[in-house]
Amino acid sequence: MVTASAPGKVYLFGEHAVVYGEPAVPCAIGLRASVTAEKRDEGLRIEAEDLSLSGFTVEYDDDETNRPDIDVPNSLVDAAMGYVDEAVAQVREAADSPDAGFDITIESKIPLGAGLGSSAAVAAAAIEAGTRELGVELSKAEIAERAYQVENTVQDGQASRADTFCSTMGGAVRIEGDDCQRIDSPDLPFVIGYDGGAGDTGALVAGVRELRDEYDFAADTVEAIGDIVRRGEQALAAENIDEIGDLMNFNHGLLSALGVSSRTLDSMVWAARDAGGLGAKLTGAGGGGCIVALDETPETLTALEYTPGCEEAFRAELDTDGVRVESG
Amino acid sequence: MVTASAPGKVYLFGEHAVVYGEPAVPCAIGLRASVTAEKRDEGLRIEAEDLSLSGFTVEYDDDETNRPDIDVPNSLVDAAMGYVDEAVAQVREAADSPDAGFDITIESKIPLGAGLGSSAAVAAAAIEAGTRELGVELSKAEIAERAYQVENTVQDGQASRADTFCSTMGGAVRIEGDDCQRIDSPDLPFVIGYDGGAGDTGALVAGVRELRDEYDFAADTVEAIGDIVRRGEQALAAENIDEIGDLMNFNHGLLSALGVSSRTLDSMVWAARDAGGLGAKLTGAGGGGCIVALDETPETLTALEYTPGCEEAFRAELDTDGVRVESG
Repeated sequence: MVTASAPGKVYLFGEHAVVYGEPAVPCAIGLRASVTAEKRDEGLRIEAEDLSLSGFTVEYDDDETNRPDIDVPNSLVDAAMGYVDEAVAQVREAADSPDAGFDITIESKIPLGAGLGSSAAVAAAAIEAGTRELGVELSKAEIAERAYQVENTVQDGQASRADTFCSTMGGAVRIEGDDCQRIDSPDLPFVIGYDGGAGDTGALVAGVRELRDEYDFAADTVEAIGDIVRRGEQALAAENIDEIGDLMNFNHGLLSALGVSSRTLDSMVWAARDAGGLGAKLTGAGGGGCIVALDETPETLTALEYTPGCEEAFRAELDTDGVRVESG
Repeated sequence: MVTASAPGKVYLFGEHAVVYGEPAVPCAIGLRASVTAEKRDEGLRIEAEDLSLSGFTVEYDDDETNRPDIDVPNSLVDAAMGYVDEAVAQVREAADSPDAGFDITIESKIPLGAGLGSSAAVAAAAIEAGTRELGVELSKAEIAERAYQVENTVQDGQASRADTFCSTMGGAVRIEGDDCQRIDSPDLPFVIGYDGGAGDTGALVAGVRELRDEYDFAADTVEAIGDIVRRGEQALAAENIDEIGDLMNFNHGLLSALGVSSRTLDSMVWAARDAGGLGAKLTGAGGGGCIVALDETPETLTALEYTPGCEEAFRAELDTDGVRVESG
């Protein structure tokens, strides 16, 4: 029996613009999904616990066709189970053990469907746990590649490498097209606010595309986000946290211009800024979900806890480990 | 005794970027300042009533040095009185009557210090009323020029021609540097929300300048606002209100990126959008003050009335008259 875990992520800079070839910088956060894999004779049994901060438990046995009785949208459960199914397929292929059976247990502190990369973390941790359980040790590069294949299969070929690479490698990473690399970063005192919702990623991406196709100034705005990312990399290398915050603020405004912010996201962003946070922006597709701010003091967390529309607020340091074996 | 009135204004597009040579489109709104001028033997007596929607009355006699006891910042009263003093100087010069004395009465429905161009309206109306009272009829072009001189004197050479030209001419106007002209526009169903505050215009303009000097992407953002204005002129000519709203939303996001929005401005902008307003943006220097939205239905007005932080909400049609004589 092997337990592995992998972190969630936030976008420090560059979401949406990354779709058009601009660079982006996601950062792994110290909020993890753990996957335990134990060999069994055949088949697959998946048990999922605490898949979101709101808390729910799934007992799901794929020998049975009954859907568990839980208070979350089926599509989320379907999605989570789909990621595990595909991760196990990758494990079997990597270990050349097409018939290997597993009991898989998932525990995650990463809110599901909040844009924090929970599915990528589950995929990476499941691949690490499953292959180790079969006595095979993969390089991080191979785990990242296979985790990406998992997401890409589940997401019908639309996945970005950002989440899986970031979750596997940890730290701040730079994504530009298919080119992914870790970059230098100081410790970053993330504070995250979550409105409990999620935007429609497909519709949000399509909305940006329409604006960009229609208006040169929207295309320029996408390019300006890329320029922010390039300046942001310099600020990370220089460990200039104040400037990183300023760039996050600017990035958020440009995302707002592109139509992907929302009332609650802006409300949380302002709570963070007014509380003295060094910078605040939405993270991910937008339309709802999470904001990320930087604040070493307790002020932003407190402000978010008292902000109407903020369902959960928590701190998360920059994670520098990526996927790792916890036991076994 | 002659009474003249002149409208306030909102920026449909382009504030801040206009400082750097980009075009901007302010629009006159059906919310007016009235000035009554009556000859007297010598000197000047100024009475101001209802200088803001919040309501206060100033009785101010410039033969006396006593400051009236009113519940508004002295700087606002000083400013309002300064505009009238300078407007009367313009009247005396235009009518070649250096010793003309006046009783001046001001009534305004334009909130003072809210970025709605109350001082420009007072200046234009005072020049029209004062010259007519002396039997002189100025062209609108001359009133606009003299009203600009009033603002420029009071504002130590820092005034823009936008407010005075717009208030004098009425309608939608295009400002680019010193070039000002009326442009075609359909009727626009403005709804305005006012948070009761005002940003520090000098600090906000300086903040944009610093960003623009430091970051190419900020300079690009300023240029993108200019591009929005140019598209906005086409949308006005085509009477495409939906697109005008979309462009206002984009413009607001870019202003947010430049650091000139605020928590209450964003809160009002989202109230308008969520209520079905066709577009919403801050108007003027930002940091506090007013937002402007477009909505033919009552929904945006109602939403703003129930939005925390919104002190006043009101409708205003596009004013097409500009300065006009009301009586006398």
